[in-house]
Amino acid sequence: MAIGNQQSVITLLTDFGTEDYFVGAMKGVILSANPAVQIVDITHDIPPQDIHAAAFNLLATYQDFPAGTIHLAVVDPGVGSIRRPVLIDCAGQFFVGPDNGLFSWICQREGNYVARHVTNDKFFRQPKSRTFHGRDVFAPVAAALSNGTRPEEFGAAINDLVSLESLKTKVGNVGQVAGLIIHIDRFGNCITNFTANEFANTLKRGSKLLVNETEITSVREFFAEAAGSDGELFMIKGSAGFIEIAIRNASAAEVLKAERGQPVILVE
Amino acid sequence: MAIGNQQSVITLLTDFGTEDYFVGAMKGVILSANPAVQIVDITHDIPPQDIHAAAFNLLATYQDFPAGTIHLAVVDPGVGSIRRPVLIDCAGQFFVGPDNGLFSWICQREGNYVARHVTNDKFFRQPKSRTFHGRDVFAPVAAALSNGTRPEEFGAAINDLVSLESLKTKVGNVGQVAGLIIHIDRFGNCITNFTANEFANTLKRGSKLLVNETEITSVREFFAEAAGSDGELFMIKGSAGFIEIAIRNASAAEVLKAERGQPVILVE
Amino acid sequence: MAIGNQQSVITLLTDFGTEDYFVGAMKGVILSANPAVQIVDITHDIPPQDIHAAAFNLLATYQDFPAGTIHLAVVDPGVGSIRRPVLIDCAGQFFVGPDNGLFSWICQREGNYVARHVTNDKFFRQPKSRTFHGRDVFAPVAAALSNGTRPEEFGAAINDLVSLESLKTKVGNVGQVAGLIIHIDRFGNCITNFTANEFANTLKRGSKLLVNETEITSVREFFAEAAGSDGELFMIKGSAGFIEIAIRNASAAEVLKAERGQPVILVE
Repeated sequence: MAIGNQQSVITLLTDFGTEDYFVGAMKGVILSANPAVQIVDITHDIPPQDIHAAAFNLLATYQDFPAGTIHLAVVDPGVGSIRRPVLIDCAGQFFVGPDNGLFSWICQREGNYVARHVTNDKFFRQPKSRTFHGRDVFAPVAAALSNGTRPEEFGAAINDLVSLESLKTKVGNVGQVAGLIIHIDRFGNCITNFTANEFANTLKRGSKLLVNETEITSVREFFAEAAGSDGELFMIKGSAGFIEIAIRNASAAEVLKAERGQPVILVE
Repeated sequence: MAIGNQQSVITLLTDFGTEDYFVGAMKGVILSANPAVQIVDITHDIPPQDIHAAAFNLLATYQDFPAGTIHLAVVDPGVGSIRRPVLIDCAGQFFVGPDNGLFSWICQREGNYVARHVTNDKFFRQPKSRTFHGRDVFAPVAAALSNGTRPEEFGAAINDLVSLESLKTKVGNVGQVAGLIIHIDRFGNCITNFTANEFANTLKRGSKLLVNETEITSVREFFAEAAGSDGELFMIKGSAGFIEIAIRNASAAEVLKAERGQPVILVE
Repeated sequence: MAIGNQQSVITLLTDFGTEDYFVGAMKGVILSANPAVQIVDITHDIPPQDIHAAAFNLLATYQDFPAGTIHLAVVDPGVGSIRRPVLIDCAGQFFVGPDNGLFSWICQREGNYVARHVTNDKFFRQPKSRTFHGRDVFAPVAAALSNGTRPEEFGAAINDLVSLESLKTKVGNVGQVAGLIIHIDRFGNCITNFTANEFANTLKRGSKLLVNETEITSVREFFAEAAGSDGELFMIKGSAGFIEIAIRNASAAEVLKAERGQPVILVE
């Protein structure tokens, strides 16, 4: 792992937007502790307080980063309250943020992880505000990690991390699997929890998806393939590893009147 | 200070937005002179030509950066005219940009600083346009600084920097202090010029704030604390070091019909 | 050239926006291969699938970057189809992206270049999706280049790059030159294909521009110079090297009802 050397990578994912000084302040704190770290913005445009959208985006990209990467995620409606700051060692990478489920889909997928309650306030910015733990708690903890501080120095291991609902699909009625829409991206593509690896062959055999009263039966390999069929909903293996429901040059979410959490039934 | 080595940090704060090539061009110029510098975006979404918003955001975050950091700020309605480019050495950091008040709140807070009129055109990009000094003047000057050029090589010291109005509150009628709203952030929180350090105890003793005809009497330590009291305006110690007026899950600025510059009276 | 050392610069220009994980994933792939590279965002806010806007922004800024810079541009409506991935060696820099004209204005200006069809899939991310070549093809190719892989290892040279229409102006009726609006920036400034170097003197001699039925006769050196003349359209030497049509504190495109591609006649 790259921890402790100058090539450490820290990613940032927040709902802070980019109009104010918030992200800059976090970066200043990190660079004050480790001027040579690589800081990468994943996004700061998570809808305010939308833990699910943050969890999805992190799930979709953490595997692309090098071993030892430190992912700093701050979508934190409970800032200043008793919710715990956590540090998770999982899949050869580190995850730092509030204990509100942000990292639970990654932990669920990976299975093995060690989570710690970050309590050692010698790593915090002084004075520590009660309104901006991104700057005062999470950024300095991530920076200390990048400088080689061992995880156990931040606090004791815990085994009761807050979790979002599971991403696993469920066997439903005969010949049916019950899933749901876990994310809608900015193009209106509906990402389901049917994993591409598990269900790609099922779809090729002529299965269909049901969303509300709508049947989706077409399968596409890539978007340009759907040229000439504007207006037709189709299934596609998405780049995050899940089956997505899409429509060319339009929003599938609008056509389906679908929202996140909406049930999707796979009929085999 | 870190000047002259490869770990120099240059921050950027502009009103250029992120749709066009403008910010990329500044970074290209900087990296052409110093490929190893750390470039950090504070924000490029300052409202066009809004010097006050730029000054506030820089004031709120410069202290989080390491010694020797070079802050490059370009909100520059007078570009191409006779307004001066300046370089300020203050608080162990450097500030580069147009002389229009951008840095005056920092200079006011710190007291000690040396400002220079940047006139040595050997540091400028050639040819120097009259429409894009961010790329042609300020970026190459910041890059040269990061490479170890001494401040006095850029131009002579001056003592007549342009200043924005003071951020100091004023003693008003008996038992009153007159302040104002200096910034409204994207959530609608109203940042006042009452400093948290100076006024925190005053507020705890039961003082109230008056904005227009509205009285604010509640004090909160953190945002989640206000759960169950949606719709109530409260004072809170903000992360920029000032007392802010906020409301949970809504815009205090809208509720108060407040604008930047609006008077705020502290009644003790 | 800086290829093969740790000071390589990779720029990114896409239409992915910044709400989703897409840009983060590309950066993760790059840093996994070369943790010390400098990654610079030019913009991710190109309007979806707008190859012309991407081509213009890259044309306007590539010359500001150091020798050896790798420009990675992904505006790719044909992703997953048979359109070719290309690598172009031009002007001492490298350009990586889909073969749809993105780089053709740069090649046209520079004249000399070597383009290659990227076919060596040992450089691609495995598995390679058919929906996200930014992450799976272009990012790993750029990263391999930054690590010193020689261009010829990626694929064979080609001489039939896809080109956008030429940026050259045309001699029109007697005393007229026919040009067009090649870009409209976010302020509504209309960038023409009249190059500032070639036409600056012509304009000074009292020539005028015609757009639709509107004559533009004023020339300004810088924006603040137009103070007191709000509402008047003027020509100005823009920072991208072209003559622009602008209006102070308003959108020239709206006033002119102009769109990209609109003819502009220079009357000498």
